[in-house]
Amino acid sequence: MATVNKQITLAARPAGLPKVSDFHMVYSPVPSPGEGEVLVRSVYLSLDPYMRGRMSDAESYVRPLAIGEVITGGAVASVVESRHADFLAGDTVEGMLGWQEYAIANGRELRKLDPDAAPISTALGVLGMPGLTAYFGLLDICDPKPGETVVVSAAAGGVGMVAGQIAKIKGCRVVGVAGSEARIPWLLDELGFDAAFNYKAVEDPYDTLKELCPAGIDVYFDNVGGKLSDAVVRLINAKARISLCGQISRYNLNEPELGPRWLNQLIVKQAKVQGFLVSGYAERFPAALKQLAGWMKQGKLKYREEIAQGIEAAPQAFIGMLQGRNEGKQLVQLSWS
Amino acid sequence: MATVNKQITLAARPAGLPKVSDFHMVYSPVPSPGEGEVLVRSVYLSLDPYMRGRMSDAESYVRPLAIGEVITGGAVASVVESRHADFLAGDTVEGMLGWQEYAIANGRELRKLDPDAAPISTALGVLGMPGLTAYFGLLDICDPKPGETVVVSAAAGGVGMVAGQIAKIKGCRVVGVAGSEARIPWLLDELGFDAAFNYKAVEDPYDTLKELCPAGIDVYFDNVGGKLSDAVVRLINAKARISLCGQISRYNLNEPELGPRWLNQLIVKQAKVQGFLVSGYAERFPAALKQLAGWMKQGKLKYREEIAQGIEAAPQAFIGMLQGRNEGKQLVQLSWS
Repeated sequence: MATVNKQITLAARPAGLPKVSDFHMVYSPVPSPGEGEVLVRSVYLSLDPYMRGRMSDAESYVRPLAIGEVITGGAVASVVESRHADFLAGDTVEGMLGWQEYAIANGRELRKLDPDAAPISTALGVLGMPGLTAYFGLLDICDPKPGETVVVSAAAGGVGMVAGQIAKIKGCRVVGVAGSEARIPWLLDELGFDAAFNYKAVEDPYDTLKELCPAGIDVYFDNVGGKLSDAVVRLINAKARISLCGQISRYNLNEPELGPRWLNQLIVKQAKVQGFLVSGYAERFPAALKQLAGWMKQGKLKYREEIAQGIEAAPQAFIGMLQGRNEGKQLVQLSWS
Repeated sequence: MATVNKQITLAARPAGLPKVSDFHMVYSPVPSPGEGEVLVRSVYLSLDPYMRGRMSDAESYVRPLAIGEVITGGAVASVVESRHADFLAGDTVEGMLGWQEYAIANGRELRKLDPDAAPISTALGVLGMPGLTAYFGLLDICDPKPGETVVVSAAAGGVGMVAGQIAKIKGCRVVGVAGSEARIPWLLDELGFDAAFNYKAVEDPYDTLKELCPAGIDVYFDNVGGKLSDAVVRLINAKARISLCGQISRYNLNEPELGPRWLNQLIVKQAKVQGFLVSGYAERFPAALKQLAGWMKQGKLKYREEIAQGIEAAPQAFIGMLQGRNEGKQLVQLSWS
């Protein structure tokens, strides 16, 4: 076993899009677990847009990271040494382990995975937080009905790809909006979306959306916000539902951006906009994971992963994800346990 | 009986705040009812902010008024001549009768009132569309709980005064926001609001709201929009509910106004913003009216009316209402039936 633990800490609060120099690599001794604790070696680290918020000191639903603190993040790991009755060395687990090769976790904070049931990386994607986020954000908030038109933004990302496929399972017409041309064929041919386009390649997404949504928009699963949402809102049908999952177009802005006020459109259309955090649905995670795993086994829920190699690659991969460069769920592989 | 019917028509689509010259007075013969129809003479005409939308040709949930068309609006009237089995001369009715002294209505479109049950003008206010709007917009969308903080904008208007009082009935701390200093004592002393202020008298309503809502804001019943809503959203608690009833601060703008994008705050707070039209609740009107009448009889639901005299006064009274000059429900008295 290695005796050195590589950790990535926050060196500086990013101004706008993070830079590699906002991160710092620290070499520390591999720690030993105390009573009830487990020492794990991470296999896959999950990179998710919400982490950008933790790097800022703006008020939010969790305290911000301190300068010098290990970056938080979910990971799948292998148990090295256990002092908790529920875990043995060699077990595969998932938890908030942070950007580091080794971590100490309290056994209560870990979820044990069955490596034979599904590839372990899916515990960070389609069968993990992103999958659950798509599941509750789409089904609980929007309740999509067969034949309705559903627009998903960041459709090729870890959450969007699941949201779009669930909408297809529910019998909807699904229009995916992505940030790169390269992903459009995958959304159409592999995931079965009815239409998809790269909003960065069009002057005003309104015209494209209008063409691709001839019956208007009933449901909008939003990861992006900004001008794309302005365009969607102009096209919503009566009783439309908008689920706010993320606003990635805003995360790197230093100043609050201005946009047209469109709340009156919500009145005219009797429409709803609702923000949510997946943590609010924790009690219902087991049932949702069972449903997601069932759809995956039936071939109805496909996924794609973009895997960077080595903890050194994490900052650049994270920055790329914020720019919309990833195709599918962004992971970093830390070991080959 | 008079043989001349005074009608007010739309002379020009208002640019910004309507002017008296946007309206035109027409003198026409009093019409005769056909089979199934009723000739009525209006007693009270209801002036409501939504009418501003009808004067514009922007896409909306109903077709816009044509130039030269009689302005639409609800009224309480007395039946002059009936060719419908359900109505007799002398009956008091409520319906969408328009800005005119006499109107022909199909019997199906009229609601018969009992003048002994409540003052007939209340059928246009607390026991009519504004009361129902407050009832469903507050209770159905926001479900206020005892002890929660509820902010109501345009709190002294026809809808706002009812919404605030219902919130008090539900045991909430109610903060009213009005557009004139003169109404504050009435909101506090007569209606029992816990706090109230004139947002036009403060630099930034955020500071005042923060002081008056020390436990944050759980529910916002919004008739106004704009900067006031920006301030409210900064102060919402987790799981806050915002009911969009109107956006009167926007109605007279020719260009879409820009404002800060704050949808990310809805995610962080797991909050909901929902627009509604009272017409969407038509099936539940009878039960709601019964409840509202019950509260009124118990003295829990008070109201105030601002009554302009004569159809000639309607345009100026309407303009004043859009500027927030009315204290209570704005009516125009057309006759003393």
